[in-house]
Amino acid sequence: MFVKNTWYVAAWAEEVTRELMSRKFLNTPVVMYRTEKGEPVALEDACPHRYYPLSKGVLKGDSIQCGYHGMVFGCSGKCERIPGQEQIPKSAKVRSFPMVERWGWLWIWMGDPELADPEKIIDIPQLRTDQWHQIKGERIYYKGSYKLMLDNLLDPSHVPFVHPTIFSSGNEAEYPVDTASHNGFVTVSRMVPKANVPPIFRTIKADLPEKMDRYQVYRVSPPSLCVIETGVVETGDWKSVVMKEDTLTEAPAVPEGDERKVYSIRGFDFMTPETESTTHYFWFLVTNVGVGDEQVKEKLRQQGIAAFAEDIEVVEGIQARVEQGNLPPQSVIGIDRGYIQLHRMLEKMLEAEKA
Amino acid sequence: MFVKNTWYVAAWAEEVTRELMSRKFLNTPVVMYRTEKGEPVALEDACPHRYYPLSKGVLKGDSIQCGYHGMVFGCSGKCERIPGQEQIPKSAKVRSFPMVERWGWLWIWMGDPELADPEKIIDIPQLRTDQWHQIKGERIYYKGSYKLMLDNLLDPSHVPFVHPTIFSSGNEAEYPVDTASHNGFVTVSRMVPKANVPPIFRTIKADLPEKMDRYQVYRVSPPSLCVIETGVVETGDWKSVVMKEDTLTEAPAVPEGDERKVYSIRGFDFMTPETESTTHYFWFLVTNVGVGDEQVKEKLRQQGIAAFAEDIEVVEGIQARVEQGNLPPQSVIGIDRGYIQLHRMLEKMLEAEKA
Amino acid sequence: MFVKNTWYVAAWAEEVTRELMSRKFLNTPVVMYRTEKGEPVALEDACPHRYYPLSKGVLKGDSIQCGYHGMVFGCSGKCERIPGQEQIPKSAKVRSFPMVERWGWLWIWMGDPELADPEKIIDIPQLRTDQWHQIKGERIYYKGSYKLMLDNLLDPSHVPFVHPTIFSSGNEAEYPVDTASHNGFVTVSRMVPKANVPPIFRTIKADLPEKMDRYQVYRVSPPSLCVIETGVVETGDWKSVVMKEDTLTEAPAVPEGDERKVYSIRGFDFMTPETESTTHYFWFLVTNVGVGDEQVKEKLRQQGIAAFAEDIEVVEGIQARVEQGNLPPQSVIGIDRGYIQLHRMLEKMLEAEKA
Ligand code: FES
Ligand code: FES
Ligand code: FES
Repeated sequence: MFVKNTWYVAAWAEEVTRELMSRKFLNTPVVMYRTEKGEPVALEDACPHRYYPLSKGVLKGDSIQCGYHGMVFGCSGKCERIPGQEQIPKSAKVRSFPMVERWGWLWIWMGDPELADPEKIIDIPQLRTDQWHQIKGERIYYKGSYKLMLDNLLDPSHVPFVHPTIFSSGNEAEYPVDTASHNGFVTVSRMVPKANVPPIFRTIKADLPEKMDRYQVYRVSPPSLCVIETGVVETGDWKSVVMKEDTLTEAPAVPEGDERKVYSIRGFDFMTPETESTTHYFWFLVTNVGVGDEQVKEKLRQQGIAAFAEDIEVVEGIQARVEQGNLPPQSVIGIDRGYIQLHRMLEKMLEAEKA
Repeated sequence: MFVKNTWYVAAWAEEVTRELMSRKFLNTPVVMYRTEKGEPVALEDACPHRYYPLSKGVLKGDSIQCGYHGMVFGCSGKCERIPGQEQIPKSAKVRSFPMVERWGWLWIWMGDPELADPEKIIDIPQLRTDQWHQIKGERIYYKGSYKLMLDNLLDPSHVPFVHPTIFSSGNEAEYPVDTASHNGFVTVSRMVPKANVPPIFRTIKADLPEKMDRYQVYRVSPPSLCVIETGVVETGDWKSVVMKEDTLTEAPAVPEGDERKVYSIRGFDFMTPETESTTHYFWFLVTNVGVGDEQVKEKLRQQGIAAFAEDIEVVEGIQARVEQGNLPPQSVIGIDRGYIQLHRMLEKMLEAEKA
Repeated sequence: MFVKNTWYVAAWAEEVTRELMSRKFLNTPVVMYRTEKGEPVALEDACPHRYYPLSKGVLKGDSIQCGYHGMVFGCSGKCERIPGQEQIPKSAKVRSFPMVERWGWLWIWMGDPELADPEKIIDIPQLRTDQWHQIKGERIYYKGSYKLMLDNLLDPSHVPFVHPTIFSSGNEAEYPVDTASHNGFVTVSRMVPKANVPPIFRTIKADLPEKMDRYQVYRVSPPSLCVIETGVVETGDWKSVVMKEDTLTEAPAVPEGDERKVYSIRGFDFMTPETESTTHYFWFLVTNVGVGDEQVKEKLRQQGIAAFAEDIEVVEGIQARVEQGNLPPQSVIGIDRGYIQLHRMLEKMLEAEKA
């Protein structure tokens, strides 16, 4: 089961061109391309005549000609031409999926097109300012449920075990987490006073003090959006690093008047289910450290690639294990509060669509 | 579901020798070999003792000795010997499938052996005359239902889209098709006056005029036999190219007294289901152009190989897409009349065998 | 269905070290390792928190730390530590499987641990004497049911067909077999007077006479243990080669006072089901020929490897064929008496565990 009435990332903007390209979302094969003017188009990838994938046809202007008998379908999915036949039956059509280009990505709406309001696409303030810079990531294809990666990305407690040489101060897991659930997302966060500075910060800024106050703020808006931030600030009144709790994308900051700089790395990780057990994973990073320094960007990119590969190993390991069955009864522990709220929220969204 | 009471091509005659060879038809593994006198034999490929495939045993004269405990089975499938035991239970036997060698192929009957009349094997008059020559094709193994290839081979309308550089005049699809259903086969045909000569004819005969009258006659006798002919004739009263409608293998011709020559290429394409979704595809061509010219034969063979690979791509594409599910409602269009008659005929054959 | 309350071979003793190692038995993934003192440990291979395989974690002393959130599990399977949390719920645990090291192997008990009596592990007298020497074999992983290999190893009649150049005198199958079923095992045996000496004996002892009396004694104790012996003795009163019928491991011998030497090769072959259709196969040989001669050992090892590969081919051939379905009705023949008793015994064991 998938939430359908939501925007999912379908592709990096530059992946979709004048070449037909097929990708599967929510178990549904979709063919994507751009019109001559550059508008992105997404259609059901199956000719309704004999089910030859439209992605194996050819573009004729803004329309696709099927590679088997030459029926032509326009951007709306309606058949525009049948060779050797004047009348075109109204039933000759495929679904067209709303698509919007924003933040360097193409977003697709797999549910009821009437509800596809582009205003519902996540706002990313960090991409609207020059105080942050963007490190483009990847599309990763992994063999596991999208849910397993949401769990991972809501969970700062795995860091010392899964990413010891990239993101960890070594002792995060000994500090308690705060869990809060908001209108559409869950936050799990933690503050660690006088912590070892995580290696990823050393990589991009050599002259940080040995110990700094450090925070993790991990937020997931099911079924797809994860925003995880890790930051350090000069040791002081570390509790004064605050964030607006009701915004998915607000970055933590010191209160006005406080002169200390918050060094922050933030990951945007968006899951698009291919099937129940396979997922397209799109990510990028932003940081306010070394803005404009290309070396910093490249270093961060490499660290991001390495870290997400570590997560994929965990998630694919769990997926494979669960598929084997014969599992012990599940244990619930203290750090699972966010996990429970997340799954409750997801369950409600699925229920709401059924009703 | 398969039609069982019919002759299917099992192998090229030269494929079956004194080496045991296993191939699966209609979901049933079959072991094939020849007796010392050269008669083809086909038995169920499983020893009834512990189910070791008989094809892993050895030939002893005209019989197979099982490779596990040495039970010996004769051409009729009856057990002839059990090591260390005198009495042979009557139940110790496997099915033997009637097999006939004709037209360079071995034909197998997977249904009731009582009904296996060799007279029912298709007659191929073009192989009984020296006015045509035969271009031997291949056995292709493809991942798709046999039905999808019957559909393809009853359908001259796919030619400009799937075979634009081999069989097409460019504009066939704009001309209407005639559809007729006969006693055991369906015909879909089309005449195109003053058409571009399809490239395949240029390849084998350079000096044809630029434009000629052109026809396609595609015939399918379910569940297995397809005979497709494409031909050109000097432009004239093109309607006078006629064929006897009640014969699967009659070639179109000009009426008596008409001096024009009909240049024809005809494909015999026979499908033998391996499973519901995999098929053995046997084919050869005949032509009355360049009879006796080995270069013509080789060129045609290469064109045939290329064209059937194009069809396989379509058929495998549809099979894979259908298996993914989530399909749009199917559209029926004008060219589907033959398709509908074919499936009705097939459905009746399957029903008749159930009764 | 599997018999659970029995000792299965899990690994060669040297396979399990201070590195975590995962292997699946009876459909259950198990992680194995040794404590700092060298005791073997076997735990369910799934963290009860989120089901990440424990085998992907790290050893901390005698305990495993999960690679995802760092929960620590001791040898008993109980959780000993949860990072950031003092209270450990009693439910936080995995199953621990009794494990015993004996005869160079690690034996595992997948059923009720209360019943896991190490005294029930097979005694192997030949490993407690210097009159026999041991030829270490392999762990073979094969794609077939454990039952198919039990059938094979209870069955001396396949030898001339499957192992003609290793174990066969050529004509064994013409001699009748004796079948007996005892308390927990079935014996199928055969005596062949004045037989060709099987090639494997020639390989290790050149100066044997051309013809000798020859026996095969094949014993299977379901669900796992097979002991097969093949021997030769100077021709004489061959019926006087006797064995104690009520012992799985007693070797045949001439009566006291008889001076003739019995040359014997005995295989111990132990099957541990991975799934219903895949098996871990552990084996070694013992012989009383050429004791202490390293060349003899190496030659026997090579012959064993070759012979068991021949069996694997048969068993995998049957498994694959059976999975294809469409099988003829099964024939029961004279040599099947042992097979029938074996399956009856196995069926009873399975029933007993259900009750
Ligand atoms: S399958 Fe697309 S036009 Fe026929
Ligand atoms: S399996 Fe064929 S003789 Fe036993
Ligand atoms: S999955 Fe093992 S500790 Fe969380």
